Amino acid sequence: MSQSKSGFSKLSKVDKLEWLLSTYFSEDAHVEKVLKQYWNANESLQRLHDDFIENTISNFYLPYAVAPNFMINDKYYTVPMVIEESSVVAAASKAAKFWSKRGGFKTTILGTEKIGQVHFMYNGDKEKLRDFFELTKSKFFENTQAITANMQKRGGGITSIELRDKTSSLDNYYQLHATFETVNSMGANFINTCLEDFAKTLKEEAEIYEGFSEDEHIDLVMSILSNFVPNCVVRAEVSCLVEDLDPNPAFAEKFVQAVQIARVEPFRAVTHNKGIMNGVDAVVLATGNDFRAVEAGVHAYASKEGQYKSLSNAEIKDGVFRFWLDLPLALGVVGGLTSLHPLVKFSLQMLGNPNAQELMQVVAAAGLAQNFGALNSLTTTGIQQGHMKMHLINILNQLEATHDERKLTLKRFKGRPITHSAVVSFVETLRIQQ
Amino acid sequence: MSQSKSGFSKLSKVDKLEWLLSTYFSEDAHVEKVLKQYWNANESLQRLHDDFIENTISNFYLPYAVAPNFMINDKYYTVPMVIEESSVVAAASKAAKFWSKRGGFKTTILGTEKIGQVHFMYNGDKEKLRDFFELTKSKFFENTQAITANMQKRGGGITSIELRDKTSSLDNYYQLHATFETVNSMGANFINTCLEDFAKTLKEEAEIYEGFSEDEHIDLVMSILSNFVPNCVVRAEVSCLVEDLDPNPAFAEKFVQAVQIARVEPFRAVTHNKGIMNGVDAVVLATGNDFRAVEAGVHAYASKEGQYKSLSNAEIKDGVFRFWLDLPLALGVVGGLTSLHPLVKFSLQMLGNPNAQELMQVVAAAGLAQNFGALNSLTTTGIQQGHMKMHLINILNQLEATHDERKLTLKRFKGRPITHSAVVSFVETLRIQQ
Repeated sequence: MSQSKSGFSKLSKVDKLEWLLSTYFSEDAHVEKVLKQYWNANESLQRLHDDFIENTISNFYLPYAVAPNFMINDKYYTVPMVIEESSVVAAASKAAKFWSKRGGFKTTILGTEKIGQVHFMYNGDKEKLRDFFELTKSKFFENTQAITANMQKRGGGITSIELRDKTSSLDNYYQLHATFETVNSMGANFINTCLEDFAKTLKEEAEIYEGFSEDEHIDLVMSILSNFVPNCVVRAEVSCLVEDLDPNPAFAEKFVQAVQIARVEPFRAVTHNKGIMNGVDAVVLATGNDFRAVEAGVHAYASKEGQYKSLSNAEIKDGVFRFWLDLPLALGVVGGLTSLHPLVKFSLQMLGNPNAQELMQVVAAAGLAQNFGALNSLTTTGIQQGHMKMHLINILNQLEATHDERKLTLKRFKGRPITHSAVVSFVETLRIQQ
Repeated sequence: MSQSKSGFSKLSKVDKLEWLLSTYFSEDAHVEKVLKQYWNANESLQRLHDDFIENTISNFYLPYAVAPNFMINDKYYTVPMVIEESSVVAAASKAAKFWSKRGGFKTTILGTEKIGQVHFMYNGDKEKLRDFFELTKSKFFENTQAITANMQKRGGGITSIELRDKTSSLDNYYQLHATFETVNSMGANFINTCLEDFAKTLKEEAEIYEGFSEDEHIDLVMSILSNFVPNCVVRAEVSCLVEDLDPNPAFAEKFVQAVQIARVEPFRAVTHNKGIMNGVDAVVLATGNDFRAVEAGVHAYASKEGQYKSLSNAEIKDGVFRFWLDLPLALGVVGGLTSLHPLVKFSLQMLGNPNAQELMQVVAAAGLAQNFGALNSLTTTGIQQGHMKMHLINILNQLEATHDERKLTLKRFKGRPITHSAVVSFVETLRIQQ
């Protein structure tokens, strides 16, 4: 049965649950137990988590795991990862250990610029708009002083504001295109607050500007930061002698081929980059950052030359294998969830309370490690071997298999094709025999 | 202190934790408590979650919430959403309710084709390769019969296999490009298993094919599904008379302008689509699907015409406002986490145990609702007003504010700028006065 519901958000959590149970689950006590078994016994902790967003009724568990042995710029890290997909943490750990014996990951910050825009329509003379902008420009800075004071103390602030004429794309469309340095915060609140203030100034000043005729006016459309951050980029790389990579020299060549394919073939590039993001998002989540923002920025960056491409590169030159990745990442280590979610605090502490630039470097190394692991499997054994073993364990959990059943099933399916029905029928046979 | 660790993955969960605590936290008992307070008291449930991936040490809570009043194709849904970002569920619920009074969401499946490729290098005569492929083609189907039998029973299977010459992009590079119908599963395991089998057949058959000379051989590089699914697409749309949208007719016009800007300006398009993905990913996570796969496919789709663009469109025509979205989505309702994670089962049951196509439609409606909500705020009040209220509540939680402190602080900051330091100092003043 499905139905609408008025005033749902105003109900208490218990009343929300009751409505759901009676509407969709015939008041099934088992279903109620399923939801409630995830509630934390510590009421104030539960309240903290309930208040993160609206209409919360339970806690969704994602596995919180760690990948040790990440040597990044000669320092060891144990990297926190939150992800539901099996094999990701195992592959990251394996790649990290492998590279820790070959000099580790080297990372460099290529830029930290954030971007925001005020989008508006203007139907008049372009020269007049330019004059108005030059005259008003200082006011955008002045009027935001109360907002930017603290950020400036930390070494950040508004770094530029320019007027952009976009009328060749859309009639009457212009922007204030502004850049920001937000230091250790991701900066969304700061940037959006500045932009909304710019918009207010723009509107107010335009209304009293005598240079415009009565027909010439500015219509604000919206003010918002951009998650496309092509100048907020970190590079991560690994390299070693070809002979130190693998006893079989064909491995390095095939690996480079696999990366080249992802450079030229979008169908492959998308999944190649998806693999990178398995590592990236896991750390982004564990450190309380917004993975939708990171995903959008990264994939747009992958398409910035017109065709969607691999984010990583590989080459063999003078007997040296080199594998690297440029990744646009707008991350924060203060603000948002970072000080609110106890496990996020734990993650940051385990990483040595990094600043935002250090966190960018750890995240990029995790992405590169993941990509290395995936390409390593793909170009050698294929990925199904590893996936299938995890698949088997998951089926055993689903069947609530005993210790003995697990042992016998794992032995039975070693080297054999694993399908859901084959495993179920094997375990059922075991149970009948008992 | 940072250090490397051998054999970490083989340690028990308790021993892993002990190593972390002694290495990074000076055996701080408080930190241990933080991690353990998230462990579930039900040991077999905890074990289930621990086994999802490797090296798990705790459960990362993401808020599990619901957005009621989604009318999709004349049926009401309450949509499960897992997301840490405030305002998303509130905006989705509000948009859902708004459109439920204006005919609701209409959705259409435009295709369900999945894609996988075997990438290989071939250094010989192209005609010979084509002949070899035509001769071998039926064997790819025959040799995978054991794998495809069950999928065929459900109406799916391998729908095509073609040889693609990619040598204009990369020397000697060819593909088997295959398409699949995977019905109610996302299909990754099925597709990858088929592809690895194709690769095996390709290699074996090439070795015995007499048409190739001694120098002409096939070198496999890798076999893998693609997360780029431009023919697995759902459309969601809403429409109503302009006068039913908003009493102010300028609203519809400004809304359409905002969408047009996201069509022509990549800096805006990325954030516009990020907003869509706030809704999409929340449902993807709640239903046990892989958000990295969806993100990669969606953003690549946004760049498929060469410039990164908005995924949604809006128009006003003959007095009717129309707003729609085409979204590539490869989702499953069986396999993977869907039968494993108790809250995923709950989500699917609440949605009426949808098939994969119905789930695509719900996810697309959530994305469109989210986009509507974001553009609605952006083009009217701006987004900071709503964000800042949630920000204030989060700061109060962080300060462990009492009921009275909350009431007084909310009252104080109504309509005033909210900064972290201003709220902290106000609460501190309250506490001194007591």
